[in-house]
Amino acid sequence: MTRPADLPAMTDILDAADRLAGHAVVTPLLSNDRLDAETGARIFVKAECLQRTGSFKFRGAFNRISRLTDAEKQCGILAYSSGNHAQGVAAAARINGTTAKILMPEDAPRSKVEGVLFWGGEVVTYDRATESREAMGQAIADAEGRILVPPYEDPFIIAGQGTAGLEAAEQLEVLGATPDLVVCCAGGGGLIAGVGLAMRDAFPGVEIWAAEPEGFDDHRRSLASGQRETNERLTGSICDAIITPTPGALTWALNSTQLTGGAAISDDDALDAMAAAWRHLKIVVEPGGVAALAAVLSGKIDIAGKTVCVLATGGNVDRAVFERALARA
Amino acid sequence: MTRPADLPAMTDILDAADRLAGHAVVTPLLSNDRLDAETGARIFVKAECLQRTGSFKFRGAFNRISRLTDAEKQCGILAYSSGNHAQGVAAAARINGTTAKILMPEDAPRSKVEGVLFWGGEVVTYDRATESREAMGQAIADAEGRILVPPYEDPFIIAGQGTAGLEAAEQLEVLGATPDLVVCCAGGGGLIAGVGLAMRDAFPGVEIWAAEPEGFDDHRRSLASGQRETNERLTGSICDAIITPTPGALTWALNSTQLTGGAAISDDDALDAMAAAWRHLKIVVEPGGVAALAAVLSGKIDIAGKTVCVLATGGNVDRAVFERALARA
Repeated sequence: MTRPADLPAMTDILDAADRLAGHAVVTPLLSNDRLDAETGARIFVKAECLQRTGSFKFRGAFNRISRLTDAEKQCGILAYSSGNHAQGVAAAARINGTTAKILMPEDAPRSKVEGVLFWGGEVVTYDRATESREAMGQAIADAEGRILVPPYEDPFIIAGQGTAGLEAAEQLEVLGATPDLVVCCAGGGGLIAGVGLAMRDAFPGVEIWAAEPEGFDDHRRSLASGQRETNERLTGSICDAIITPTPGALTWALNSTQLTGGAAISDDDALDAMAAAWRHLKIVVEPGGVAALAAVLSGKIDIAGKTVCVLATGGNVDRAVFERALARA
Repeated sequence: MTRPADLPAMTDILDAADRLAGHAVVTPLLSNDRLDAETGARIFVKAECLQRTGSFKFRGAFNRISRLTDAEKQCGILAYSSGNHAQGVAAAARINGTTAKILMPEDAPRSKVEGVLFWGGEVVTYDRATESREAMGQAIADAEGRILVPPYEDPFIIAGQGTAGLEAAEQLEVLGATPDLVVCCAGGGGLIAGVGLAMRDAFPGVEIWAAEPEGFDDHRRSLASGQRETNERLTGSICDAIITPTPGALTWALNSTQLTGGAAISDDDALDAMAAAWRHLKIVVEPGGVAALAAVLSGKIDIAGKTVCVLATGGNVDRAVFERALARA
């Protein structure tokens, strides 16, 4: 397997898009008259919750796994994930003729575990609060000879996620819309790194903003301090998909130069945005996936008078959490 | 205003598509690996719940209203609707510089009334069980000099709705998929008439199936008897969007020759399909809008081994009904 230079470039995203054609969904760019009227802005929502396996994660996983040699495929894959990367990896593994073992937190949403099992993935659980998934994952990969497919610290993963931004940029251009801001959630920062790369290629003046849960706003704080900051905890937000200890080293090499700023949203902001997406956009978005929309609807990022592209990154949510959002509708 | 011959033809759908470009959403054609695995079929869902105003009705309303002369626009519009045509008309009226008064049943979902009000429509209510909306609507139109925009008995409306089928056919062709069946809900029959026309133009051998609520299966019974049958009641289903007394005369002229058969679904079938759409497709669909998906997921239309295009026609649903669906997930 050949690898690009450690930092992916625009050509890697274009290459990933070719590879994903016919496998990933070209997700729609949605807008809504009522949301625009309420915010005084022009909001476009890239609906990655409609992506195969229910989140953007399929893009990076497929881009990475489809490049494995036959010998590597025989080794099988090991991945760690709160559940969306897990499903993306399990699906890409099955489609590409290999197997996946996935390390998932004990408190992962049931819907995400079921998604992995559907694709034939083998699930191993760990305690999010006390165990290091990185260390456990590496240990299993070493012991079993499996290929580790990390959730964001990999140029092919970042380039694959970037195809969501490439598509959104093309869709905006068709509409004749030039975004002032792109707002994207950030966990390890792989998606926002790739999306930022593609969006700034298409729209050089566009601002890229990170949306994170309160208490897990490591990108926002890292931008402020100029160095990678670490979150104190790894539990305590309903946004399970975007809780990571710190920005990735590789992703931060891109994000530190690409990001304008960040916003930290509360659980209630996320639930309110899920309800707005349900009511107005008619899409199902999970708490972590709705963080960017929450940041703009809650006013934590000022969008008045602006054209904004927001990524809605996943829709894998259990019923009880969705009912909490509906109760606020 | 010029009118085509009473029965719309394929050229009228193509003409409507040109007119709708830039105003209506090109809604995505969704599929899901798990739904396909569970049914043993290949299911494509045309997600019209993501259409502007939350249902396909905007298509026909815009196609009709955008053709009004300036003098007609000054008269204003009168429409009767359970709520989706209402919102489509209110939006198309506002966009085209005229006003709309809408006759809606007293038990219309609150979300639908709010949608009409957002677009500046004026709402007048009637009792679905005891009053004739057709007679009341005509009386108001006559008294106030308003232009009546009927929900389905109009060639421009049928042709506008048919653009959903035109798009779906184009999307299927891009995917290299040839549908064996198209399944579409039927109220007055405007959508399924237009969609059937477009789909059979693209795929001459395709079967067109109607999905209706139990007790309101006038299309299914009319196909069996060879004449337009009437429903006994006008209340008693959660599928508010597709409860009509009888197939339209104009729509039946098309549907009687285009339809292969029909299926009658229960409230529980609709709620289960809403839950499946929430869980797997990540879209919000209302009870009437999910009838076609309910017909195939409940097994009331046999799709094993087949390629099926299903229309999910609207997503305007109140919270309490959606919670009933979630409770079955």
